[in-house]
Amino acid sequence: MAVTFAKRTEILKRSEIREILKITQRPEVISFAGGLPAPELFPVEEMKHIAVKVLKDSGSQALQYSTTEGFEPLRQKIAARMNAKFKTIVQPNNVLITSGSQQALDFSGKLFINTGDVVLCESPTYLAAISAFSAYEPNFIEVPTDDNGMIIEELERILQTVDNVKLIYIIPDFQNPTGRTWSLERRQQFIKLINKYEIPVVEDNPYGELRFEGSPLPSIKSFDTKGLVIFVSTFSKTFCPGLRIGWIAADSSFIEKFVLIKQGADLHTSSISQREISAYMEVYDFEEHIKRIISVYKKRRDAMINAMQEHFIGDIQFNRPQGGLFTWVEMPQRIKAVELLKRCLQHDVAFVPGDSFFPNRQVENTFRLNYSNMPEERIYEGIKRLAMVLKDY
Amino acid sequence: MAVTFAKRTEILKRSEIREILKITQRPEVISFAGGLPAPELFPVEEMKHIAVKVLKDSGSQALQYSTTEGFEPLRQKIAARMNAKFKTIVQPNNVLITSGSQQALDFSGKLFINTGDVVLCESPTYLAAISAFSAYEPNFIEVPTDDNGMIIEELERILQTVDNVKLIYIIPDFQNPTGRTWSLERRQQFIKLINKYEIPVVEDNPYGELRFEGSPLPSIKSFDTKGLVIFVSTFSKTFCPGLRIGWIAADSSFIEKFVLIKQGADLHTSSISQREISAYMEVYDFEEHIKRIISVYKKRRDAMINAMQEHFIGDIQFNRPQGGLFTWVEMPQRIKAVELLKRCLQHDVAFVPGDSFFPNRQVENTFRLNYSNMPEERIYEGIKRLAMVLKDY
Repeated sequence: MAVTFAKRTEILKRSEIREILKITQRPEVISFAGGLPAPELFPVEEMKHIAVKVLKDSGSQALQYSTTEGFEPLRQKIAARMNAKFKTIVQPNNVLITSGSQQALDFSGKLFINTGDVVLCESPTYLAAISAFSAYEPNFIEVPTDDNGMIIEELERILQTVDNVKLIYIIPDFQNPTGRTWSLERRQQFIKLINKYEIPVVEDNPYGELRFEGSPLPSIKSFDTKGLVIFVSTFSKTFCPGLRIGWIAADSSFIEKFVLIKQGADLHTSSISQREISAYMEVYDFEEHIKRIISVYKKRRDAMINAMQEHFIGDIQFNRPQGGLFTWVEMPQRIKAVELLKRCLQHDVAFVPGDSFFPNRQVENTFRLNYSNMPEERIYEGIKRLAMVLKDY
Repeated sequence: MAVTFAKRTEILKRSEIREILKITQRPEVISFAGGLPAPELFPVEEMKHIAVKVLKDSGSQALQYSTTEGFEPLRQKIAARMNAKFKTIVQPNNVLITSGSQQALDFSGKLFINTGDVVLCESPTYLAAISAFSAYEPNFIEVPTDDNGMIIEELERILQTVDNVKLIYIIPDFQNPTGRTWSLERRQQFIKLINKYEIPVVEDNPYGELRFEGSPLPSIKSFDTKGLVIFVSTFSKTFCPGLRIGWIAADSSFIEKFVLIKQGADLHTSSISQREISAYMEVYDFEEHIKRIISVYKKRRDAMINAMQEHFIGDIQFNRPQGGLFTWVEMPQRIKAVELLKRCLQHDVAFVPGDSFFPNRQVENTFRLNYSNMPEERIYEGIKRLAMVLKDY
């Protein structure tokens, strides 16, 4: 005998984003590659107060093992906020606290996917969701999208012809990587189809609360009459990612199984971090905090869009997102984003080539830009450099 | 179509311990069922200082995304402590920080086990390891054990005859559930066999630092010349579990793959918790803290053993552990631990029946007792009640 790895590990790939992040840690690089929130907006001073308060009020419990389901007052607050913001009707016992929303994606794969099953996703889609699901060896089918979201006719054609679709993964609000948001009509058409075919849906919504303009749209979950939609979100973008607190909100028949999966995976999420977020929401105005984030990111989005409008020449398309952290650039076919990145790195500017956001398709002429992580001047300077390299290409 | 779950979920079971923990949360119950550290030993006051210090010194980084591998200064401290305490030779880059050691077990299953592969374990073994591995649908083979650890002849017989053993899971120090420690001779014989058959080994060592008496024994990892041993541990028993910080120390060829698995599973472990533990070790004397835990647990072990010696009558065997959190009781065959538990709960005393620590075998006349979580008087009172119920049985 000798050491052999499980078959699932053959397809595990290093996340291109995370590898690039390492390269771009040199301070002189203007990196649009990450998806990092702006650290200057983290409530550091408030968290000093909260950390002491939690330890003072409930130190023994905050440092002890706790239930797999999560800290009850936090589950209550999450359910209440979801119902107010996303028009859902979820109870606290529909909520499971996870170690970041990445864990919710992993668990969704673990719960639904046998080797060879089909997962449907938007084309393009969030690359770390591809990583999470890949561990369970599915086949991905990419559903074509346009500016209004998934193209429902294409989705129906797939559902009619493919018989082992076990999960549909979508990001309807300010999608990663494109920044696009599904229209109300698409949402309604989508759920109609889901109800007909009864396929579980993961609605990943880390950015929905970060809307700069326009009216919030009801979540897909809000239209979910059959308990098929697994709503996944996180405090990583509205509060801070370092605490690793996300959640799943789903029908109790799903939550029950997710709890068993979590028991085997990490017992429970940090007791103290859960209590800290809960206490923060009691002591401070969380909605005000989110408003601050929105006002800063909106300016950064504007800076990026303005800079691209000013400096990009030729047939370069980009999206003007109404919220979230990202925009998406499409170049003429002959320009390869990976090659462009290499040239850009020589000028100390970075982004993520679009290739890795397509699980199957070969799309080489797109890239993702993040605008949340740096001030406007730097965004402006970075886009100027990028435009220069692009012009020389 | 309709909702179907992955096959792996059919064998997921609620952890009996966790369910019992829920029942026994009534304050009048004397529960020997959990595996909880003593909360009065948590450094609550020190953690107030540390939490503020970490936020003051590095608030933005502590609340931001961080690397999958973990906080470098913490990895350095873990490697240094392991080399001092467990006689290993590991470098910081051999260490991956995990969200509790439970996650390390899950990842080990994910890395090595295909459906139907064989996992060897001690009989009995830690039940949450069974849960973690079960998600990857192995067959367990229980290797017989005695007071000195795994019986090596039995292990060899299995390795000679079973050709798809992919992983061996062991807890050589103060085992959960039995409290037993492998002898030096067994450790040496074991690694010799492992080197011959080249099977990866998970050496789970959450309790090794909590030795009350006798000399520490070198870890199995310390004899590992072929890079086959994956050493897994945690701060849950030596510091506090609420932070959810564990680690894997292994050959870099394994760590590389574990990092990819972790990227897909939860990106990284809490940035702030990692920095807090690291800062604690810089500001305070961690070894002194562990000594305090040891002195308290030793008294509790003594109380439990003394109470059992005094009150148990007839053919009841129990172990006198030299460290850790648990002891193990074997009763005559005709006494069923589950039935005994039901009767005990009527007298407000609880424990975990041994059944769930055997993945295959039907062993009904054993149970596990935890002594770390309550003062001596209560231990004494609980054992007295238990002895009374046992006598009436």
